[in-house]
Order: sequence, then C-alpha cells, then structure tokens
Amino acid sequence: MNLQRVLDSVYESVQPLIGSGNVAEYIPRLAAVNPDQFGMTVSTVDGERYSVGDSSVEFSIQSISKVFSLALAIAGDDEEIWARVGREPSGAAFNSLAQLEYKRGIPRNPFMNAGALVVVDHLISLEEQHVPSVLDFLRTESGNESISIDALTAASELSHGDRNAATAHFLRSYGNLRNEVSAVLDSYVNQCSIAISCEDLATAGLFLARDGQGNHGREWLTEAQAKRVNAVMLTSGFYDAAGEFAYRVGLPGKSGVGGGILAIVPDVCSICVWGPGLDASGNSLIGMAALGELTDRTGWSIF
Amino acid sequence: MNLQRVLDSVYESVQPLIGSGNVAEYIPRLAAVNPDQFGMTVSTVDGERYSVGDSSVEFSIQSISKVFSLALAIAGDDEEIWARVGREPSGAAFNSLAQLEYKRGIPRNPFMNAGALVVVDHLISLEEQHVPSVLDFLRTESGNESISIDALTAASELSHGDRNAATAHFLRSYGNLRNEVSAVLDSYVNQCSIAISCEDLATAGLFLARDGQGNHGREWLTEAQAKRVNAVMLTSGFYDAAGEFAYRVGLPGKSGVGGGILAIVPDVCSICVWGPGLDASGNSLIGMAALGELTDRTGWSIF
Amino acid sequence: MNLQRVLDSVYESVQPLIGSGNVAEYIPRLAAVNPDQFGMTVSTVDGERYSVGDSSVEFSIQSISKVFSLALAIAGDDEEIWARVGREPSGAAFNSLAQLEYKRGIPRNPFMNAGALVVVDHLISLEEQHVPSVLDFLRTESGNESISIDALTAASELSHGDRNAATAHFLRSYGNLRNEVSAVLDSYVNQCSIAISCEDLATAGLFLARDGQGNHGREWLTEAQAKRVNAVMLTSGFYDAAGEFAYRVGLPGKSGVGGGILAIVPDVCSICVWGPGLDASGNSLIGMAALGELTDRTGWSIF
Amino acid sequence: MNLQRVLDSVYESVQPLIGSGNVAEYIPRLAAVNPDQFGMTVSTVDGERYSVGDSSVEFSIQSISKVFSLALAIAGDDEEIWARVGREPSGAAFNSLAQLEYKRGIPRNPFMNAGALVVVDHLISLEEQHVPSVLDFLRTESGNESISIDALTAASELSHGDRNAATAHFLRSYGNLRNEVSAVLDSYVNQCSIAISCEDLATAGLFLARDGQGNHGREWLTEAQAKRVNAVMLTSGFYDAAGEFAYRVGLPGKSGVGGGILAIVPDVCSICVWGPGLDASGNSLIGMAALGELTDRTGWSIF
Repeated sequence: MNLQRVLDSVYESVQPLIGSGNVAEYIPRLAAVNPDQFGMTVSTVDGERYSVGDSSVEFSIQSISKVFSLALAIAGDDEEIWARVGREPSGAAFNSLAQLEYKRGIPRNPFMNAGALVVVDHLISLEEQHVPSVLDFLRTESGNESISIDALTAASELSHGDRNAATAHFLRSYGNLRNEVSAVLDSYVNQCSIAISCEDLATAGLFLARDGQGNHGREWLTEAQAKRVNAVMLTSGFYDAAGEFAYRVGLPGKSGVGGGILAIVPDVCSICVWGPGLDASGNSLIGMAALGELTDRTGWSIF
Repeated sequence: MNLQRVLDSVYESVQPLIGSGNVAEYIPRLAAVNPDQFGMTVSTVDGERYSVGDSSVEFSIQSISKVFSLALAIAGDDEEIWARVGREPSGAAFNSLAQLEYKRGIPRNPFMNAGALVVVDHLISLEEQHVPSVLDFLRTESGNESISIDALTAASELSHGDRNAATAHFLRSYGNLRNEVSAVLDSYVNQCSIAISCEDLATAGLFLARDGQGNHGREWLTEAQAKRVNAVMLTSGFYDAAGEFAYRVGLPGKSGVGGGILAIVPDVCSICVWGPGLDASGNSLIGMAALGELTDRTGWSIF
Repeated sequence: MNLQRVLDSVYESVQPLIGSGNVAEYIPRLAAVNPDQFGMTVSTVDGERYSVGDSSVEFSIQSISKVFSLALAIAGDDEEIWARVGREPSGAAFNSLAQLEYKRGIPRNPFMNAGALVVVDHLISLEEQHVPSVLDFLRTESGNESISIDALTAASELSHGDRNAATAHFLRSYGNLRNEVSAVLDSYVNQCSIAISCEDLATAGLFLARDGQGNHGREWLTEAQAKRVNAVMLTSGFYDAAGEFAYRVGLPGKSGVGGGILAIVPDVCSICVWGPGLDASGNSLIGMAALGELTDRTGWSIF
Repeated sequence: MNLQRVLDSVYESVQPLIGSGNVAEYIPRLAAVNPDQFGMTVSTVDGERYSVGDSSVEFSIQSISKVFSLALAIAGDDEEIWARVGREPSGAAFNSLAQLEYKRGIPRNPFMNAGALVVVDHLISLEEQHVPSVLDFLRTESGNESISIDALTAASELSHGDRNAATAHFLRSYGNLRNEVSAVLDSYVNQCSIAISCEDLATAGLFLARDGQGNHGREWLTEAQAKRVNAVMLTSGFYDAAGEFAYRVGLPGKSGVGGGILAIVPDVCSICVWGPGLDASGNSLIGMAALGELTDRTGWSIF
C-alpha cells in the first residue's frame, strides 16, 4: 500500500467539503480562523510520515489535549485518577452539570470537561513528582520545541469560561478538586490553547499506537494503560457522536473544537486531520469525512 | 384572644424540643451556635409585639434574607425580575444545578439559591436607582439601626462557597447574571450573614401582612406584589417541606439554616421563631413545632 | 356583599374571553366540545348557591376528580396513602416518569398522574371496607343521583392511554401498585370521565370549605385532613402554574383538562368555574381569569 | 497458536471463580439455575470450533438476542430503524425511562430495553417481507434445528414484566411503537427466552466476524452494516461496563443476564462464554474474567 497515494486520493475526494461546517463561535479567537483549510498527516510506528494539505499549519488543539493529560495522569498515578473519574461513556452533553450532580461529583469519563478538570487537578498535584506538562510532552514526542501556548486563545477562553468555572467550583463542592479553582482553570485553558500542526500532533500521538512507548523509547504507559486510553477514546472521544465515529471510521479517536481529530490505528499508525468547520456534533466535518475515506481505502477499521 | 398567654403556652409546649435537631454543619460559624436556645415574636399590624424566650438574641438570617431581597427587586422593577426567574415550586434540592440546566439558566423560583443570586444581581444593577439594601431595609423597618452583617459568618460562608460560586458562574454562562460573579457572591453572602433577633425580624416582616405597607407608612409593594411574595413563600419557602409546612402551619413562610423562620398571617401579624436545631429538611425543628402549635391555638392557618 | 351581583359583573368582565384558548386535543371526545361556553357557581357554607352562564351544563371532570379520590383515600386510611405518595409540589410535568424514576416509584404528590393512580389503587383495595366511589361521593354530596360516567369519554381515554398505562406499569415495577394495571386504569379513567355541572361540582366540594364536613352532616375528613387536602391543592393543583394561581387567585384549587376548576375559600364557599379553552399550562383560560376577577372583587384571596 | 490449549489454560485459570457472583434474581426461572457451571466456545471464520467446560449446556440467551434482532432489522430496512433508535452509548441504566423522556421517545441505542423493543416492533412490521425471526436465524446459522424458546422462562418474564410493559407503553405514547404492546412484549420475551448453548451461539455469531456473511454463504448484512453492529456492541453492549469491557477485553460484545456473553474478533472468530453468576454490573463475572484471559493470551484486543 502506497500511503502517500492513499492520502492524495483522500485529499481529492474531500475537496468539495473544504470550507463546509461552522467554525466554533463561542471563543472569538477560534471564530476568526480561516475555514478554507485542510490538512492530514499519518505517522507510522516505523517512523514514516505522510501528509497532505495544510498539515504544517498550526491550529488550536483544544480537547485533543485531554488525551495527553489523561495519559500523563495515568502514568503518574493510575489508581488514584480512576477513583476520581469514571471511564464510561456519558450519554450527556460534554459540559453537563446535571449528570455530575446525579453522580455526586464523579465525572463519567476523563473527556467530558468535568473529567478533564479533575485530570488537570491531579496533574497539578503530581507536579512535584516531575510529571511533565502536556506542552512538554508534545514538544518531546514531536521533537518540535517551538510548540507553544497561544496566549490570545487562552485569554479568550478564560474570559468566556463561566461554564468551566461553574464546573470546577461544582467539583470542588463535592471535594473532587484539590487545588484552587483558578489554578486548575489556568492550567486547563493553557493546555487547550496549545497551537500545533497535524504533523506534530500525529507524531506525538504515536505512543498510543505503540502500546505506550514513545518515539525515543520511553515507556510512557504500560500496554494495558495504553489500551485503556484507546478504549476510552473509542467509547467517549466524540461526545454524542462516539457511536457514529466508531461506525464510520472505526478507530479510537478524539476531536477538538479547533477542528482537529487525532485517531489511532493500534500497532500501525497515528493519524491527525484538521479542518476548522464543525458539524452539528462539534466535530470537524471534513475531518470525519477524510478519516472515513481513509479507513475505507486502508481497511484500518478495528471492527 | 390574649396573645401573650398563647405565646406562653406555646413556649411551654415546645420546651421538650429545645436542643433537638442538628445545627447547620457546613458553615463553621453556624456550627458553633449554642443549640439550647429558642425565641419567638409576634408583631401585629396594630403595632403590638409579643415575645417569649430568646427573642432578643441575634441569629444568622441566612435564607430568610431572600424574602427581603425579592421584595426590593420587585419594588425596583417588577417586570424584569420575573423575566429572569420563575415563581413555581421546584421539586428539587435548593442548590440543584441539574434543574437549572434543564431550564436553561432560568431558576424555578427566587428562593432557590440560583434564583436568589439572580435577584441579588438584579439589585446590584438597581443600585444607582437608590433601591435600599436588605440591611438598610431591615434597619428602617425594625427601627434598629444597630443591625449589621456578621463578618465572621460572611467570611466563613465565602470560604465554603464553591456550590454558590458554581451556581453563579453557571447562571452567567446562560447570560442570566450581569455583574461580576465575585460582586454577586459578596452581596449575597453579606445579606445572608446579617445577624438579627426575632423581635426585629418579625417587625421588619410586617409589610407583608399589611399588603406591602411598611411600619412608617411607606408603600414598599403594591397589594398585588405583596400577595405575590406571600404566594411564593407558601409554595417555595421550605424547599422540600413546602407541602408539609402548608399543612402543619398553613401560613406563607421562609426558613433559614440559621434556625429562623418568618411567617406571615395576612392582615393580622408577622411571626418570627428561632431555634438552631434543624430537622432533616433543613428547617428549624422547634420552630416548625412552635408555629404548628401557634396556628392550632389561634386558628390562623389560611386553609 | 351581594354575591349574585358580583358573579354577574365577573361574567360581564370575562365575556371577551369566551372561546379563547385551545380545547384539549389528545382525547377526541374532549376535542369535540363547543368552546364557546362558560359557567360559574359559588356554593356557600350557609347553603346558598349563586350561578352565571352555563353553570348547569355538564362537562368532563377530568383531573378535578383527583381531589375527591384523594379525600376518600385519606378518609379510608390516612397513614397508608402518605407512605405511598408524597405531598410536595413536583416542578415536573404532570405525567413525568423521569421524576418517578429518581424517586424510586414514589410520586411527588397525589395530583400528578402517577400519584392519582396510586390513590385509585389504594381505593380499590379499600373497596371491601365500603369506602364509596368518587361517583357515589359526588352524587351524595351534590344531591344529584343522575351524575354519571360518560362512556364515550372513558373509551376515548382508554384507547389513547399509553402514557397512563406506562405510568401504572412503572409504579407496579416499583411495587407501588397492588391491583392489576387494567383494573386501576379502568377505575382511573372512569372517575376522570364523570360528567358534571358547575352547580353540582361546587356543591360537592363544600366539605373542603367546611373542615371536612359534608352537606348532610357527615364528617368525611377531620379538620386536619381537610386542611391537608387544601394545602396540597394550593401547592400542587395546577401543575406548572401553581405559583401563578396562588398569586392571581390566591385559593386552593384544582383544574382539569375538561376546562373545569374547583376552588375553595376555607370557611366561606366552594367555587366551580368552567370554560373549555385551555391556556398554555393546560388550565381553563377563562376560568383562571374569572377566578382572578372574583377574588379581586371579594377579597377572598388567602394571602 | 493452538487454540484448544489456550482455551484449556483459560479454563484452568478461571476455575477459582466458578460459582462466584449472583444469579439473576428477578426472574424465578433464572434464579433456579445451578451457578456452578462454566462453558466457552470459540468458532473461527475458517469453520473450526474449540470448546471447554459446559459449552453444550443450554442457557437463557436474554439480552444477547438483541444483537440478532438488530441485525435482522437492519437487514430488513436499515434506514427506517435508525430513524427510530439512536446508536450512541447511554450513560443510563438499561431500563431507564428518564432518559427516554428527555429524548422524547427515541431510545439512545438498540441494546437498551427501550431500543430493543423498538427493534422488535420493527421486525413484526417486517414479517410480511419474510424476514426470519431470531429463532429461525439462530437455528439456520448454528445448524441446530432443535434450538427453541423455553416456555417457562417466557412465562416467568411476562409475569414479572411491568418495567418492560411500562417502557413499551411509553414508547407508544411517543408514537414510536406501531404494533400492539402485547404483541411486541410477547415477541420480545420470546426472543429473550431462547435456550442455547455456547457452541451454537458462538457459531451463530460468526457472521459478525465475517463482515455480515453467514455460515452458508448468505450475505445477511453488508460489510458496513456488520461494522455498525460491532461498533454498537463495543460502545453499548455492556450497559454501565462498556468502557470496562473495552479495556479489559477489547472486543465488541454483548452480555445477557442469563450469564452469557457473545464477543466478536473481526475477521478471526466469534466467542461465546457462559457462567450464571453476575457481577455488580449484571455481566457474567467468570465470563468477563475468561474473556480477559483469552485476549491477554491471544492478543485479540482490537486496541
């Protein structure tokens, strides 16, 4: 299989969708992104990398960062994090407080906003144990030290962050947040505001295709832990479109409202696709289509 | 009817209950109150006042303050406040965010915490129109200028206020809070931390028994507005014990976790009873009993 | 006060509303009622009766029957019924199963459909104790033996009764229904399908204005029990418009989708008003207006 | 890989768990099953079959039947069924009516009871199109014509079926059930009461490992449809333990309260394991353990 040719044909097939969907509106900085962009990169476990389109353009990582913070929290202290957050799909909106109330402060999974805040809180508590930050991790694994936080996005999110603040205080009222709300929100918004390209993100995600092993040989996670992250991605990575993504694409994946999607083909490769226009579920419209085309052409679906 | 004798006999009948129930635990300042206290005052529309027990001891007004902030908000701008908060009983916990989510940021009534925060927010916006504060109102109507905010209670509440902070940010995420969260919380906590005695509180509540007219002749509310406040008290003044209070006591009323209860007998009198021990629903155990005895002896139930 | 003149003036003032609102659509038999009708009767505790308009025309009692079945269940066995159904307002739709699920099969109050089904189930179990049926009660208290069940309405309801059947089976799955679902539904639909006039209904309701005593001297309820029923009517008699009714009318009351409303002025009178057009909350539009006008003119509001 | 040896070693490793867990209590017929049994069969796409333990003993298929009814409904009319039922995980109990109420009668997925009832209703409507029944399908694909419905189990379920009856009537009240409730319940209970062995069930499930193709060459589903069923199994096949199963076992699967589990290794094999003792989530305790051991030893996890 000539992967570059496959990517080229996928690129061609989704051309008509470039510019479709709606750019995220609730954060001014994201709303200003040019919608007519599209990029895709496949990084294989053998160290090869194939790209098409705007694969070197940086975009806002947003919720895809939750995959990395979860991995770091698990690496730091597996048992404790699973006592504070579940790993089952939610069936509720990503920012629902109602469900959190019924579950008495235990978020259903680490990819809902509430769960991600607990993970970030846990990481802050682990800092003295020299657990690296999401930013450090992405720089190390991608080999690109210039990856950084977009300060304007972070500021924009903080000033439109009442829902996240409500969630953090709510968690704290149940005793499931240990650090100050402002510290947790700062850290959370910072990791969501990282600007990164498809090329770097696909490469940084490879450890999940390699049973937890990073690009320079470090065992970030055990095989069982890496499977766990992949399983949570498959069941909970796309909010109310998890079943849809499992069917159309058939891979563990995680999307962000910046228009990016990271998907993992266990033992084969890590894929990043990006297009800013979102579908009704908040996932990249062209990204979903491109991944569907890609797994159709490669047979990479795990089902 | 000799009201003083009636009060004396009520006092005697509830003696065995003094010290029963549990003092509110979640605010250290309230948890430290001596539980073996009980006071009761009846202020009549004719200007008479009858008391028993610790009726001149100050206690924390807590949620009873919501009655006065609501009255002031209505007086300031009736239409606007009812566009931002409902006036129906909730069937949910007083601090439920789940219900607020289903109602998209419109609290069910002004006595739930969420509704009270909206009312406080509205009052802040009305400040330039010289609407008095709850503290000013209580001083004016009771004639006691020394009533004040207990700074220790306020500080204690703020430092245990994650649930209220969550609620305020949640309201703001729906666009139903206009001022800064910190300003609204400060104002809310301050009004809840007012220390006041049964005597002063019963007298300050008389305007609701007098179709809106204050003790010095001021028309705080129209007759229709005063009825509205009384109706909301009856349907929503006791959280999950509204039906119970309507049956046992049969009066519009509002309780607070400081152990106070204010009840209104339209056209007759205003009653304040206080005892720090709370029942399972969070209402003064002895207060509920004393009011039940009082309406049994006087026939004041509105049913 | 010349009550007939008051009624005449209320009648005149609501004339413009005759025909307004929407007739209940979900039961074909109700949908066929001529909307341009209006009647009102006041029956006093002294035995006087004043009427205007179509006060002798029969209409479908619907949910107003729940007041009478509750009274009979209380009379039969007070303690048991309150172990199976709450008496607090619900804050949810009258036919919500979600709330019933959270409360594990205990309906919030006897006026929600679930609560009314439990009451009916209880009455069936009491039959051998010669507790009269709602129909018997209405005939006895109104003195009109020709009151009867409208078979077409009953048939129409049963064939459109999936929601009630779901509720009954749901209650039974929690062990809170003892008789066969079909028997309970039959009995429930029958009592809801009683055809009765304003004159007869107002007269039959008088026992609630007279502390439980019927028109021929029978003590149907103790004073405390009658207060309980009135209190439940005030807090829960109008679904999501209980607070609204408490404010506009200020009386314990119960509405039905047939367009009738029964309201009680304790120690004074029982009022029945009827007009088929419903407002958005499912209560008679003209009935609400007429009762508001009536209490404005008479000062009968309990607030 | 010698599969028989692998199965033997799995069998040995789970011996200590035989008899652990609790047999389903709510259906007397299931409660009477001897808990000290365990069987397991792997049927490969090449036509080989490997078994251990009580693999030829019949057990009650229960909710595993939902996989087959879903497949038949999809085969009959793919578009229509997905308009009536979602395919996303639920985050709620398998028999929750609350969620169904919020979703206005559209079940979240076809494996919740509500969704399965809609599927059965759809199948009844397709009967005239000669879509086979679940029983026919199982007989055909297993090659065992003696598979049949256990009449005692069916009777037992019907007489304890108020929750299912409530669900069916509730669906009908939303217009999402076309046939009579009694017909749908009969059909549903019958398919759940099929008695079948691990050997026959593993073999009948092979079409899902073979992109939809049955054992005698029939294309029951397209490849895309088979993937869909597998994806729904992975995200929704284990109620509140879907994430757990995805992690521990890593395969699409479906459990039943009879203690059976069917799991699919795409392109490789179909696995059936059975042990009557259930864990807290209602899944076979020993079955979960055996499948975990099996995928550990074989590397069959899809993650």
